[in-house]
Amino acid sequence: MKDLTRGKVFLIGAGPGDPDLLTLKALKAMQAADVVVYDRLVSPEITALVPAHVERIDVGKMPKRHKVPQEQINDILVKLAMQGQRVVRLKGGDPLIFGRGSEEAEELRLAGVAYEYVPGITSAQGAAASTGVPLTHRGLASGVRYVTGHRAKDATLDLDWASLACEDTTLVIYMGAMNIGDIAAELMRNGLPSALPVMAVASVTTPREKRLISTLATIADDVEGAALAAPVLFVVGHVVSLYEATALPAEVAAYA
Amino acid sequence: MKDLTRGKVFLIGAGPGDPDLLTLKALKAMQAADVVVYDRLVSPEITALVPAHVERIDVGKMPKRHKVPQEQINDILVKLAMQGQRVVRLKGGDPLIFGRGSEEAEELRLAGVAYEYVPGITSAQGAAASTGVPLTHRGLASGVRYVTGHRAKDATLDLDWASLACEDTTLVIYMGAMNIGDIAAELMRNGLPSALPVMAVASVTTPREKRLISTLATIADDVEGAALAAPVLFVVGHVVSLYEATALPAEVAAYA
Ligand SMILES: C[S@@+](CC[C@H](N)C(=O)[O-])C[C@H]1O[C@@H](n2cnc3c(N)ncnc32)[C@H](O)[C@@H]1O
Ligand SMILES: C[S@@+](CC[C@H](N)C(=O)[O-])C[C@H]1O[C@@H](n2cnc3c(N)ncnc32)[C@H](O)[C@@H]1O
Repeated sequence: MKDLTRGKVFLIGAGPGDPDLLTLKALKAMQAADVVVYDRLVSPEITALVPAHVERIDVGKMPKRHKVPQEQINDILVKLAMQGQRVVRLKGGDPLIFGRGSEEAEELRLAGVAYEYVPGITSAQGAAASTGVPLTHRGLASGVRYVTGHRAKDATLDLDWASLACEDTTLVIYMGAMNIGDIAAELMRNGLPSALPVMAVASVTTPREKRLISTLATIADDVEGAALAAPVLFVVGHVVSLYEATALPAEVAAYA
Repeated sequence: MKDLTRGKVFLIGAGPGDPDLLTLKALKAMQAADVVVYDRLVSPEITALVPAHVERIDVGKMPKRHKVPQEQINDILVKLAMQGQRVVRLKGGDPLIFGRGSEEAEELRLAGVAYEYVPGITSAQGAAASTGVPLTHRGLASGVRYVTGHRAKDATLDLDWASLACEDTTLVIYMGAMNIGDIAAELMRNGLPSALPVMAVASVTTPREKRLISTLATIADDVEGAALAAPVLFVVGHVVSLYEATALPAEVAAYA
């Protein structure tokens, strides 16, 4: 019989893909879990680390057609915890950066279910470490900003363009692949130079990692030409100019 | 004799303090190292994990009086690697977010020394996970921005205030403890509401973690009154309003 008092949900960031970038806390929680609930952003290399006796539930979402709607994911988490299970909810990157971790937590709180967050390496940090492009660097970027390039169906992009056109700040665009052309155009219209370097990186820190170096003026065409597979992250700013200079050793350049 | 061909520097993020938030990659590198070079931001709980046979070099910096100047740290790293040693350079948080990781890498490249980055949980993410205050959240923050509140001696704060006063973006201020009064005043002058919530968190994810919830109008006085010990991070934005609602279980609220 399950111990009903110990039912709890761990909202855990799995990092960008490389299983070695899991935190010790995340790995321990996976190993002590009764059930692991994960989605499409969690790499197969990481789900492979879930012990065989632990139940797995894949609530993976497809970009256009949501496999399991968010409300249903919430219900699954509440139900499993109410049964007294130790539930690990694994998310790509960090649960509190474009991860809806705090939305799932709200539902758990309403249902009286205990939970705990475990941070994960967000994909921007994975991209920086694997490509050698820093997020901040003296003289090139005094800060960094993460935005989402996603827009609801038929809606316009709801971004504060004037505020975003800040050349001194590295801009990282999550969920931007569909709209990168419009985003780059708005950034240029608001004053960012068309030659400002842009890096697109897909599936960072996995054996499938692909990179593309471009500029604001050319990124839309280049991304279309390269047909990068999701997930893709964009890094905009002068720090990208350090990419070639980094000359990372081959085993790092190829990653894995 | 050391194998000169394998000399290499690993520029590693140790995360915000909790040793369980080390990545597997960081721990493995520490265990396989010949020497570990670390500074004041790496928690004692983490340096305790360096195996006894591994040499340790503390280049810790004090806020006012630099213990070891940056150029000397660079020289130490180059020299050790040239001797054929596997050098782990441990940094608090992430090496590429206000970590000078890419500055050290530039020197290593110039000297022909191989290196590799390993990302770490940045302190903003540690603060979010431990306090339950998300960095992004639907309806409260569509993005997040990390800036430094540090200024060179006698210089003015070099921040783009108009761009920063964006209510829809969570603002995380690193190295801001000395200047939080001026920063808050400028943000209000540029249009952010004086009642906008602000959280200060010291030594996140360690047994010494301390939190303070305030507003733009009151944060300077409150921080002075609380005499928080460094390192301190500030989170500004509507997401902080979720703090009370989170009601994290006691063992998490107390951390560790
Ligand atoms: C719903 S957001 C989740 C972000 C995640 N919580 C994080 O902290 O990285 C999904 C977006 O994150 C980015 N992303 C996540 N994992 C990635 C990876 N391994 N490589 C590149 N981009 C990634 C992509 O921009 C993707 O569209
Ligand atoms: C030189 S920066 C280094 C940042 C680090 N690379 C990171 O990613 O977190 C130092 C500043 O980081 C923040 N910081 C680092 N570790 C912290 C911790 N454990 N608790 C609170 N703030 C921290 C403080 O704002 C501190 O002044």
